[in-house]
Amino acid sequence: MKTDTERPGEFELIARYFAPIAGAGGLGLLDDAGLIRPARGYEIVVTADALVAGVHFFPDDPPASIARKALAVNLSDLAAKGAKPDGFVLSLVLPRGWTEDWLGGFAQGLKHIADEGGCPLIGGDTVSTPGPLTLSITAFGSVPAGRMVVRSGAKPGDILLVSGSIGDGALGLKVHGPDRPDWVAALTEADRAHLADRYLHPRPRLALAAALQAHASSAMDVSDGLIGDLAKLLSASRIGAEVDLDAVPLSGPARAAIMADPALLELAWTGGDDYEILCTAPGRDYPSLVAAGEAAGVPLAVIGRITADAGTVRYLQQGQPREFARRSFTHF
Amino acid sequence: MKTDTERPGEFELIARYFAPIAGAGGLGLLDDAGLIRPARGYEIVVTADALVAGVHFFPDDPPASIARKALAVNLSDLAAKGAKPDGFVLSLVLPRGWTEDWLGGFAQGLKHIADEGGCPLIGGDTVSTPGPLTLSITAFGSVPAGRMVVRSGAKPGDILLVSGSIGDGALGLKVHGPDRPDWVAALTEADRAHLADRYLHPRPRLALAAALQAHASSAMDVSDGLIGDLAKLLSASRIGAEVDLDAVPLSGPARAAIMADPALLELAWTGGDDYEILCTAPGRDYPSLVAAGEAAGVPLAVIGRITADAGTVRYLQQGQPREFARRSFTHF
Repeated sequence: MKTDTERPGEFELIARYFAPIAGAGGLGLLDDAGLIRPARGYEIVVTADALVAGVHFFPDDPPASIARKALAVNLSDLAAKGAKPDGFVLSLVLPRGWTEDWLGGFAQGLKHIADEGGCPLIGGDTVSTPGPLTLSITAFGSVPAGRMVVRSGAKPGDILLVSGSIGDGALGLKVHGPDRPDWVAALTEADRAHLADRYLHPRPRLALAAALQAHASSAMDVSDGLIGDLAKLLSASRIGAEVDLDAVPLSGPARAAIMADPALLELAWTGGDDYEILCTAPGRDYPSLVAAGEAAGVPLAVIGRITADAGTVRYLQQGQPREFARRSFTHF
Repeated sequence: MKTDTERPGEFELIARYFAPIAGAGGLGLLDDAGLIRPARGYEIVVTADALVAGVHFFPDDPPASIARKALAVNLSDLAAKGAKPDGFVLSLVLPRGWTEDWLGGFAQGLKHIADEGGCPLIGGDTVSTPGPLTLSITAFGSVPAGRMVVRSGAKPGDILLVSGSIGDGALGLKVHGPDRPDWVAALTEADRAHLADRYLHPRPRLALAAALQAHASSAMDVSDGLIGDLAKLLSASRIGAEVDLDAVPLSGPARAAIMADPALLELAWTGGDDYEILCTAPGRDYPSLVAAGEAAGVPLAVIGRITADAGTVRYLQQGQPREFARRSFTHF
């Protein structure tokens, strides 16, 4: 069921575009497999994310941006688990009509983020599809044995924190997408550029990984919206929370968008594509965590505290209780 | 760009269908990541394969068969590298219109092969696509440090061997596919069933892994056709080979098909989907390798020997030189 064409074969394609991104464990990408060589006393954290054109990104997004995002969302998971990246494998499922130009841009973006994250390519597979471009990345990172930061470690009394700013990704999707809503016109060019960039180029918070490992009782990355992802963390830890929505950090451009259309505040809290870190820390630990975030240039904001009330989240907005009907995007 | 529907959410879907396949390292599939805990002195072999409906399998193949094949082709790579399976992650890219029935069958087949191969699920991602069903699996196995069986270790004078039988998968594709050629009618029902089963349900040669690690100088699995895959092994090892085509092992059903249409002999040698092991061993080691294969119920046949003539393969058929124009399927 496979067909030949005149374009470069898989072998040539690997040598030209992917070998320059490979680390030692990739064995030149000439073998059936790559190698991870764990340091003694360390465990390997494994995470996987798949992205589909038209679902997770726009088919005509710049190929370098698509590649960066595909690896960044995996690095974001490693960061949340307190892991130091070791490498990744890429399954590249190419639609008919791919060009070498496109692939060159893709490889360039992939190399950029792989270098930035210290996460070389160690293997993968390239196949063709009659459907849309699909990328599946599995990334590996190291933690000292028993020290992965899990979702399920939050305890009543712990402080709830979130990194960076929330909502930029979901707002950026509106700015970047083909059907721009009216409020986009009210933003400055710089604000539009900031939001679109946050959507296109998530910044994995690897700078927080060591501090999370040292101080956090639980953590996850925020990819499907703060409100929905918080529910997952609480469910895994079998606890509840009180959340001060006014304390959820918003960027200047996000505030400007919300000024133009106040309904966007809910989108900021529930929309996806933040790739920030949601975490908890015991009262005695959280100041060290906040200090480490400041030192790393990634601020952590206190947005609430954990309660023993399993499954119950009390959201307060300007002192009043607030409910959410739709908590986050689901994939089905 | 994501949409909600009334079907079970990702969370529920994981609990119902995938948690039963998860190993300890999967952490109940409730976290952002899974864990591999390497034994001291061991390295982790990593391999990835992507499969697309309509390219690597038929969209209406039984879902259990699709799942089995997707993991089996990865286990086949681990076996060729001499690795003992540790676990795998699955990126499941579901087309619109998937049903719970389909997913139930898929999960059942996946559990079957995961149990058989001692390779539990430790994580993954499930997303939707407007295109065809796409599966990407990354599998992990352990080898003592420095002992992965590489492609590049073959030396002049080594013996060239292949496991099981060659060509059944490529012939089975013809038997199983929608456009049955005339020769299929000449086969018995049992022969047709054997060939179709070899195509649908590759048997990863994990029983050979320990022996390969102990005795082989190089190895790879045969997935894209014996002739083409041999060229890859020779290229990686920078050596040549003399191959006795008459020694390439064929099953009874494959011989029956070739009797009906002699042109199928070339298809057997060059077609894909064998998932047998192609390997080399020094003269002093190969008898132990053959003995271990016999003990494991997977025969290894000597099909040639390695020469110093880098890049040159001399194929002999009934004592006469034989050339191949098209060496194997390529994916582009």
